[in-house]
Amino acid sequence: MKVRILVLGRTDNPHLRLLTNDYLKRLTGMLRVEMQELDDLKNTQNMPVEVRKRKEGEKILKALSPKDYVILLDEKGKTFTSEQWAAHLANKLNHLGRDMVFVIGGAYGFSEELYRRADEKLSLSPMTFSHQLVRLIFAEQLYRAFSIIHGKPYHNA
Amino acid sequence: MKVRILVLGRTDNPHLRLLTNDYLKRLTGMLRVEMQELDDLKNTQNMPVEVRKRKEGEKILKALSPKDYVILLDEKGKTFTSEQWAAHLANKLNHLGRDMVFVIGGAYGFSEELYRRADEKLSLSPMTFSHQLVRLIFAEQLYRAFSIIHGKPYHNA
Repeated sequence: MKVRILVLGRTDNPHLRLLTNDYLKRLTGMLRVEMQELDDLKNTQNMPVEVRKRKEGEKILKALSPKDYVILLDEKGKTFTSEQWAAHLANKLNHLGRDMVFVIGGAYGFSEELYRRADEKLSLSPMTFSHQLVRLIFAEQLYRAFSIIHGKPYHNA
Repeated sequence: MKVRILVLGRTDNPHLRLLTNDYLKRLTGMLRVEMQELDDLKNTQNMPVEVRKRKEGEKILKALSPKDYVILLDEKGKTFTSEQWAAHLANKLNHLGRDMVFVIGGAYGFSEELYRRADEKLSLSPMTFSHQLVRLIFAEQLYRAFSIIHGKPYHNA
């Protein structure tokens, strides 16, 4: 059983990529986790937002397997404290028996089809963060959750 | 009138420093903003948490002027959407007539004295983020707020 972080678009900033990967590396031995980047859509300049969302949604849906437990990172999702989320995550990992896929979408949000496919929606904050920055914030939060689950001291990084 | 971001401890990670400074640079021309890093306390290995919090609080209080409008970045603070916060910030900047100081503390939270001095408490999320990462997240949110205030498109970075 493993955790996949499915993101739309490459992380183009090398500093952000490095910081994000650093948290994922620290999870080695505690969790099988990988980040999968899907290529951005091409020729989107004149594409209406709704069309773009639907096409992005199709791309993401293609990358999911029917057995995946899918969690969208979404401002309208459920909010947790880090401790609550660690407990929720530990419970899912122990009982689901399926791979978990956390989906970080594009700048325009998710399509209706993707909302219907999702098993959960998680909100990191009522504030909007850039979707590239969300990757780093989520990786840190995943590492923090495992530090909490394993009772490891983790004060800062 | 200007905005100061007062942080305890140097940003030791060069990638994090670069990303944070990039958002502050982008604010040039829209806002007079500076980040001020206070040195961490020394010899804290055997210091009880309460003593440490009090000493850190004294250090931060010394860096404040009596006229400063002080906002603590605190998990127990008020939450906003990015749009709500942009409106709140614009209102304060227009009417306060004083410098605003956003304080990002250490890993152990703020002292009682500092809570009493504060004019506001702002929460970026119910989740806990590393206090070094909070600098980057806050800088991005400040830039986002000004993009909203000035009606500039800002989808991602």
